[in-house]
Amino acid sequence: MRAGELTTPVLLADVGVLEANMAAMSTARPGPMLRPHVKAFKCTALAARLADDGHRSFCCATVREVEGMAAAGLGDDLLLANEVVDRRAVDRLGVLVDSGAARVTVAVDSLAAIEVAAAGGIREVLIDVDVGMPRCGCEPADAGRLADQARSVGLMVRGTMGYEGHLQHVADRADRASRTEVAMGLLSAAHAEVGGDVVSGGGTGTWDCNLVVTELQAGSFVLMDGDYARLNLPFTEGLVVLTTVVSARSGSHAALDGGLKALAMDSGGPVLVDDQSGSAGVLICSDEHTTVTGGSWQVGDRVGLRPAHIDPTIAKHEVLHLVDDVTAGGDAEVLASWMIDLRGW
Amino acid sequence: MRAGELTTPVLLADVGVLEANMAAMSTARPGPMLRPHVKAFKCTALAARLADDGHRSFCCATVREVEGMAAAGLGDDLLLANEVVDRRAVDRLGVLVDSGAARVTVAVDSLAAIEVAAAGGIREVLIDVDVGMPRCGCEPADAGRLADQARSVGLMVRGTMGYEGHLQHVADRADRASRTEVAMGLLSAAHAEVGGDVVSGGGTGTWDCNLVVTELQAGSFVLMDGDYARLNLPFTEGLVVLTTVVSARSGSHAALDGGLKALAMDSGGPVLVDDQSGSAGVLICSDEHTTVTGGSWQVGDRVGLRPAHIDPTIAKHEVLHLVDDVTAGGDAEVLASWMIDLRGW
Repeated sequence: MRAGELTTPVLLADVGVLEANMAAMSTARPGPMLRPHVKAFKCTALAARLADDGHRSFCCATVREVEGMAAAGLGDDLLLANEVVDRRAVDRLGVLVDSGAARVTVAVDSLAAIEVAAAGGIREVLIDVDVGMPRCGCEPADAGRLADQARSVGLMVRGTMGYEGHLQHVADRADRASRTEVAMGLLSAAHAEVGGDVVSGGGTGTWDCNLVVTELQAGSFVLMDGDYARLNLPFTEGLVVLTTVVSARSGSHAALDGGLKALAMDSGGPVLVDDQSGSAGVLICSDEHTTVTGGSWQVGDRVGLRPAHIDPTIAKHEVLHLVDDVTAGGDAEVLASWMIDLRGW
Repeated sequence: MRAGELTTPVLLADVGVLEANMAAMSTARPGPMLRPHVKAFKCTALAARLADDGHRSFCCATVREVEGMAAAGLGDDLLLANEVVDRRAVDRLGVLVDSGAARVTVAVDSLAAIEVAAAGGIREVLIDVDVGMPRCGCEPADAGRLADQARSVGLMVRGTMGYEGHLQHVADRADRASRTEVAMGLLSAAHAEVGGDVVSGGGTGTWDCNLVVTELQAGSFVLMDGDYARLNLPFTEGLVVLTTVVSARSGSHAALDGGLKALAMDSGGPVLVDDQSGSAGVLICSDEHTTVTGGSWQVGDRVGLRPAHIDPTIAKHEVLHLVDDVTAGGDAEVLASWMIDLRGW
């Protein structure tokens, strides 16, 4: 089947780009040194492809991701890399642990999170340490005390995690590397107080300059996006939202049938895959349409858009179609269709 | 059930606000003078509530919305208010027409769109006229010719539509009204060449100043959002994404478990329902979290966020829970739970 036979807007991934990105990462971070983050793609079929390459431990961001990975037989070692403090949500994880459906480790950064985890049947945790991003994580100085508290209620403390999310998109590599070293110094110091085998952290942007973590929590590298592409990493963009020109005004503009419900806008608008010799561009994204100008399009043409941010773009779609050449528009051959089956909460 | 028993992030709507907004609109645009746009809420249960008030003709933006409305028994008069030029997509509409499952009218703005509509079994169209928003719609001067072409291939031309989307958020009401009058002047002139009973257009922002359309295509008024709230319309905000504080650093910040996968960011970030006396605010939205600062929160607290843009926020969720008081956080009583069943394409 050709991509042009699919109802647009539709999400396409370039299988060659995907394979090359995975190979580049696997060479640097083989086996369990990479803990792929499924939040980036929310797709168990893609996770299974990573597992085939020897990466069988995964990061999740939501309880549903953990449940879906377990149901897909990918539950060898799942880290919920956020705090979960709602007892009903933790109980869903406890069921997986009790039944042996998955090994589940949960990040904790407070006594409250520890108590809920223990009460809900969680057996293993990481102490989540704030390494400079204002989100989750305890003060580094509190990590050892929290580890003691976790152990005192019967939890196994596997180690620490600390996500330097604020550094992933620092444009200059040397700056990114030096700031990552400082952030990871905080994590190392905390880990010395906590103990355990695991130091988890990092991401696509710090894939080669985070030299502290025992496992890298990267996900976006698989298909990249406009945000990460600016960093000149050895991973290339392979994700496209294919649309159809539904209206065209010669010499003025054309309307494509995919808009901000099909493309995440938090990091800016999309760009055209084929920019028609640099003259064409995106004018507006509205709910269900994108208006493009400066080019020449006919009603019915298939037009590809590259998103600025991969994770929330994929989360808007039900299916990811793998194609032989994502730049070929409607002529691309569809090689496989994978459900985006880890969406929601 | 209380909202605090739901897994967060979760979408809540205030039933009193919803009812008041619908009543205000129904008074101004009773019965078929309002053609509610289901793209705003993608929920047949909410559409059915509007139908109960006498609004039984609806606008749709996608083929799936048309199919879902027909399946829900709400197919009396469905307008797909965009061009659809893919034959497979049009065929799906043709099946509904042939089977009598729905009356379907499609917007057309080119000979190509007319030919595909006729070939796919569509029987009724509106001529879509560009009234100043660079998206879909023909040159006003071409409308009469297109109507003739549509009739020549056997289509019934019900009239015209023209959406002044570029004016919906003009802040000053007098400016908005005068510019709407100019835009609708273009539509009126085109309609004189086209004929038919229907002049369709308008939206929540021009609900009272569009004096030309025979039916208003408004949707966002039902629950409003930050964008529309700035216009001082007689509709109020009733939509909240309820989250849980999963991490809190006293005197610094707290992390909520809903981020940009649960909240549309194309019109900016969300705001706190309870801003704690004006001191608190949103610092960052990341994929699955929102970091807030300047307030006092405890791990486990339920915190509501109001989105800047309603349509794509709702499209990120599977369920809309109706509550008695959306400002009550976890204490709100859940009165009904409606599936967001018109998502996707």
